[in-house]
Formats: sequence, C-alpha cells, structure tokens
Amino acid sequence: MSRLKVAVIVGSAREASLNRLLALTMTRLAKQDIEFDWVRINDLPLFDQDILDRGPPAEVERLKAHIRRADALLFVTPEHNRSISAMLKNAIDWASRPLGASAWAGKPAAIAGASYGRIGTAAAQQHLRAILGCLDVYVMGQPEAFIHLYPGLVTPEGEVTNEETRLFLQRYMDRFESWTRRFLHAASAVQ
Amino acid sequence: MSRLKVAVIVGSAREASLNRLLALTMTRLAKQDIEFDWVRINDLPLFDQDILDRGPPAEVERLKAHIRRADALLFVTPEHNRSISAMLKNAIDWASRPLGASAWAGKPAAIAGASYGRIGTAAAQQHLRAILGCLDVYVMGQPEAFIHLYPGLVTPEGEVTNEETRLFLQRYMDRFESWTRRFLHAASAVQ
Amino acid sequence: MSRLKVAVIVGSAREASLNRLLALTMTRLAKQDIEFDWVRINDLPLFDQDILDRGPPAEVERLKAHIRRADALLFVTPEHNRSISAMLKNAIDWASRPLGASAWAGKPAAIAGASYGRIGTAAAQQHLRAILGCLDVYVMGQPEAFIHLYPGLVTPEGEVTNEETRLFLQRYMDRFESWTRRFLHAASAVQ
Amino acid sequence: MSRLKVAVIVGSAREASLNRLLALTMTRLAKQDIEFDWVRINDLPLFDQDILDRGPPAEVERLKAHIRRADALLFVTPEHNRSISAMLKNAIDWASRPLGASAWAGKPAAIAGASYGRIGTAAAQQHLRAILGCLDVYVMGQPEAFIHLYPGLVTPEGEVTNEETRLFLQRYMDRFESWTRRFLHAASAVQ
Repeated sequence: MSRLKVAVIVGSAREASLNRLLALTMTRLAKQDIEFDWVRINDLPLFDQDILDRGPPAEVERLKAHIRRADALLFVTPEHNRSISAMLKNAIDWASRPLGASAWAGKPAAIAGASYGRIGTAAAQQHLRAILGCLDVYVMGQPEAFIHLYPGLVTPEGEVTNEETRLFLQRYMDRFESWTRRFLHAASAVQ
Repeated sequence: MSRLKVAVIVGSAREASLNRLLALTMTRLAKQDIEFDWVRINDLPLFDQDILDRGPPAEVERLKAHIRRADALLFVTPEHNRSISAMLKNAIDWASRPLGASAWAGKPAAIAGASYGRIGTAAAQQHLRAILGCLDVYVMGQPEAFIHLYPGLVTPEGEVTNEETRLFLQRYMDRFESWTRRFLHAASAVQ
Repeated sequence: MSRLKVAVIVGSAREASLNRLLALTMTRLAKQDIEFDWVRINDLPLFDQDILDRGPPAEVERLKAHIRRADALLFVTPEHNRSISAMLKNAIDWASRPLGASAWAGKPAAIAGASYGRIGTAAAQQHLRAILGCLDVYVMGQPEAFIHLYPGLVTPEGEVTNEETRLFLQRYMDRFESWTRRFLHAASAVQ
Repeated sequence: MSRLKVAVIVGSAREASLNRLLALTMTRLAKQDIEFDWVRINDLPLFDQDILDRGPPAEVERLKAHIRRADALLFVTPEHNRSISAMLKNAIDWASRPLGASAWAGKPAAIAGASYGRIGTAAAQQHLRAILGCLDVYVMGQPEAFIHLYPGLVTPEGEVTNEETRLFLQRYMDRFESWTRRFLHAASAVQ
C-alpha cells in the first residue's frame, strides 16, 4: 500500500503541552506506512478579513500548502473554556479562506485531545466536529479519544505506561488509517 | 450503477409537517436510481433502559431492521428549542442500543431541515451532527440545507417554485448520492 | 428566609438510574430551607404538534403546573449519544408549548449529570444549556457537575463515601440556592 | 437609577465589519443611562500559556481592566465556520486566565450577531453561550438576536431602515438593561 502523508495539527504551542505529547504518542503508535508532517500554527496573525484582502501573509500560504499536501489530518486539541483553543480556531479560519479556496475541503481527519481533568476535552471536541463538518472535512466518528492524561500515563518520549490506554490509542490509529484509505480507495475507484 | 436504498427519517409526525414536505421535495429531485424508504418513528415508547432490558418492543425491532437494510440515511429535522425533536432523539437512541448492536454504525447520511423562520434549523442540525458523529454515522459535510420554508416555496406535492432553491436541493441530492456511493465503492474496493 | 420550592427533573426513569441516585444525593446535601418536588416525565406521549392542537393531555398540564409552582429547577441528566435523553427533551418541549405559554421562562436552574464513564455527561450538558438558554431559563454557570459515578461513590441511600465529592456537591447546592435567591431578591427589589 | 457601564466586545476588527455596525446600531438604540465602552481585542498575541507564565502582555492587562470596570458585557460576534471568530475566542481565553483571576466571572451579558446570510450567526452564538456559561458569565436567554444584515437594513451611521427590526433591537436593549439591573439589585439586596 502507498505511504500516507498525515498533517498533525496541535492546538497548543506550549512547551510542556499535554496535547503535543499526546500527538507524539499517537504518531509513534501508528504503522510505519504513515508519514507525519507537523504543522506550525503559532506564527499566524489573528485572522482579519482586511489582512486577507491585502494578500495573505507568507505564514498562511505555507500553512495552506502544508494542508493541501496531506492525505489526511490529525487534530489534537486542548480544551480552553469548553471550546477549542484560539490558536487552532485561528489556523482553521485562515486556511479556509478566501471563499472557494479552502485548503480543508475533502480531507479525512481524526480528532483527539488530552487534559489533566477527567473530561478529556469532550466539550471542545464537539465544537471542533461542528467546525470541521461545515468545512467538508471528513471526521472519523469512532473511536473518540477523550484522554485523561494524568501524570505518568505517558513518558516524555511518548511511551504509554498503561497497557489499556496503549491498546486503545493503537487501535485508534489503525482505525484512522482505514478511515483515510477508504477515501483514497473511493477516489481511485471513481476515476 | 446499482440502485441505492435510502431510509428517510423525518423528525416530525405532524400532519402538516414542513419537514415531511421538504423530505418529499428532496426525494422527488433525486435521480431515478435511488429508492426511498420512509421510516416510521412516532409509534415508539419513550426510550427507557428498563424496557430495553425486558426485551425491546416490536416497533423498535422493525425500526432497526429498516435502518439496517438501508445503504444510506436522509434525516430531515425540525428545530424544537434549538435542538432536534424528542421524537427523532428517541428513535436515534432506541436504534443505537443495546451496546454493540446499534443499527446506525457505518451508514452514510445527510441532514436537512426546514423552518418558517429564517435560521432553518441551523442550531438543531449542529446537535444532530454531534449525536450522529458519535454513533459512527458518516454525515455529509457540505452542502448544508438550512431551508427557510416560507409559504408558497414548495407546493403540497413537493414541487419547488423558486428556481434557485430547486437547483440547490437537486445539487444537494446529487452530492448525497456521490457521498453514499463513495462508501459503497470503498467497501467493495476493500473486499 | 423563605422556604424555596425546587422542582427536580431527572432525565431517566430507569429503576437503577445513576442520575436519580445523584439527584437524591444532591437533595440530601441541600440546606433544610429547600423543599424538593420530584417531577414525573415518563408518562408523557411523544411530543407531536397535532396532539397539542387537539388539546394537551392531562399529563402535560400536570407537568406544566408542577414547573410553574417551582421557584427553581434542578435538572439531572444522563448522556445518551452525546446529548440529553429523549425523555428529558420530550418533557422540555411539551412544557414549552404552545407559543407564549411556556412553563419554563424566567426560572433559575442548575444542571448536573452522572455517568459510569469519566466524562460525566459533559457533552449532554452543553446541549441542555443551549436548549434551556433559548427558553429563558437562567442556568447557573459555575460550578459544573460532571459526576463520574463509579460503583461505591454513593450509597443506595444517597450518602457520598468520598469526602471531596461530598464537599463539592454540598458547595454546588449552596451555590444553587444563592443563584436562585438572587433572582427572588431581584424580583422583590423591582416590585 | 445609576448609570450602567457596558463593555462592547465585537468579534471582528474588519474596517467594514457588519458586526461593528450592528453594535453601533444597538448602542444608539439603548437608553441614555447606559455608557458604552468599546473594547479593543485585535492587538493581543495568540493565547499561549508560556507567554502567560512569563507575565501577561500589557494589552492583556488593559483588556482585563476594561472588563472588570464594566457592569455588563455586550458581545457582537460574526460567525466563522459555524463558530465564533478566533479573535473573540482569543480575547475570552486571555481574560479568563490565570486560573482564579478571570475578569469575566459574575458579569451579566448579552450576545448578538449579524451576517449577510440568513442564519445570522445562530450556530456561532450556541458556541459562545457554552463558552461564556462555563466562565460564569450570566448570558441573557431571550430575546436572541440573529440578525440578517442585508444591504440597506442599517445606514453607515447605525440607523435602522426597517421599523420591525428597529423595534426588535430597541426591545432587545431594554431587556438587556433590565437583565443587568436585576443582578445589580440582587447584589445590593444581599449586602
């Protein structure tokens, strides 16, 4: 099977980000035929239609090119005040414009998130699904990954210390790969 | 191409239901290779785990069989208090149980809705997407159909009097058919 | 201070309902100046505008009278497929109609929920807030009660075995009382 | 009655912003005893916990001081991809931190929004309610302002050309004032 290129989009730029750690963990559990491409989103200006109208900044063009090259998208999001981070919303909005030139449409995707608290970004992920749905991103429904990332669950190198969680995340990545290949197959079957 | 079987699930049982009228209109605009199967949901008891544990009523078994036979699902929902109708939620919950025996998982679907007011069930549809997402129903992202069904827009027989709306709904049904076939193709490609 | 009358609305009628148990627990932790009135919602027909137009059933009238008598509302909801139960949505819709005769408007309220799983109905509560907001119910914002009701946390009589949870729920009920009295004070100050 | 100080927070910095125009319109329709204070949010960096930990930027301190001085908040938000703008989410997140030093808690608020399209930000407002609810902001439930701001509805100076819309917005502002005073009364009654 062909190698898959997956863009990884983490909603936090924090040095000690739980969600970057979760993303790292997930990419390590994926099969070898996936290549992960980490997308930078913390260098964009705040979205403003007037900036867009004057010509989008180079960072935005780079972001969109990044997304366009990917076969699929892996979003790993913190929950800030029961929704996604402003940084992630900002990247999504930039890459969705101008009208008719969205970089997102038609990409398969999966959503995951981690928090110190028990609800594991369950509320934020509802918002993210709504946002990506309207952008015609094909978000995997199940399994859902609401990760309660308590201290010690994952080593700084991204190794899971709890066997049940490790199996869950591995199965999650396998399902994500099948979900993605389903759309690639469909595309080639249609051709 | 093979004929598609689409289950139509309308969230209202009202005689003069706007959403039944919208569903009728949409089914008339679809290509001839789709067969529509109208699903009854107003004869179910209120979902109660204790009833389920004693053995689900015949109406529930019939509903689940109906869903299982379908290649795809067309939901047409009213908005009641910024969410979907209790009748629709009830049908969704019944057919999702017991755990591991959901009738919904893996079906492609589309969501539409109509209201007299301008927002055209936009809020209710957000809830429905969240609910169906977690049930592993593959909901089409675009286009979105928030139909402002003002008096006269559609005749009682389901003919659209406004050309722009007619073209929109026709394109919607064409996209829904492609969305559905994409999953059937993928399934056969995988086999 | 005057005695408060609080209507308790549990979204499940299951004999062994976790949420009924949580509601019982919460009512026991409240101060003595609150009188709780348990509202029955499992005997209503599925909401149907045609039934309403022919004259609402006696059960609906009883429900609305119940709500109207209350100074405040305590909703305790399960999460079914990332939203509230059909039974609760059904009760909310019935008591909100006909237009202009809603029983809900202007009541202070609080929302809580319990699940075996860790997320503790966090997603369902988002939907319930949206629904109640549009009905002009004044829902307390903080604290939020997403209760992970693992076996043994609460005795069948509604006693909490974990001190941290007990203090949290007690503080929750105290805040709910203040939230409610704030509106009663405001009402009398305006008079 | 005492003069009210209301902070106006517009989710777009666009020169030709529909929502700024709507906000201008609404402030002109309010009674003379309200003083409006326009809050700037387009000069903040993207929220990043690491920046916060090194000490929040001056712009964030200014924003929080602005919010704290206000008796109430008027949010006027565009809808970007079925949610609020990144700029608004960013301001909300900055002013909510660090933990225990949120500027938002306990403020009465109202939410409105305008779009060229018919749904008038109905979906974005659902997200905003969820976000503000968890921040203990007391958001007015009714009326809801989903404004279809078609060309010509409002003059560049903020005068409404349609009488029905003008009366609706005036009533909206009157209700917002009552909603706010209700909390001020309650505060003084408690003292």
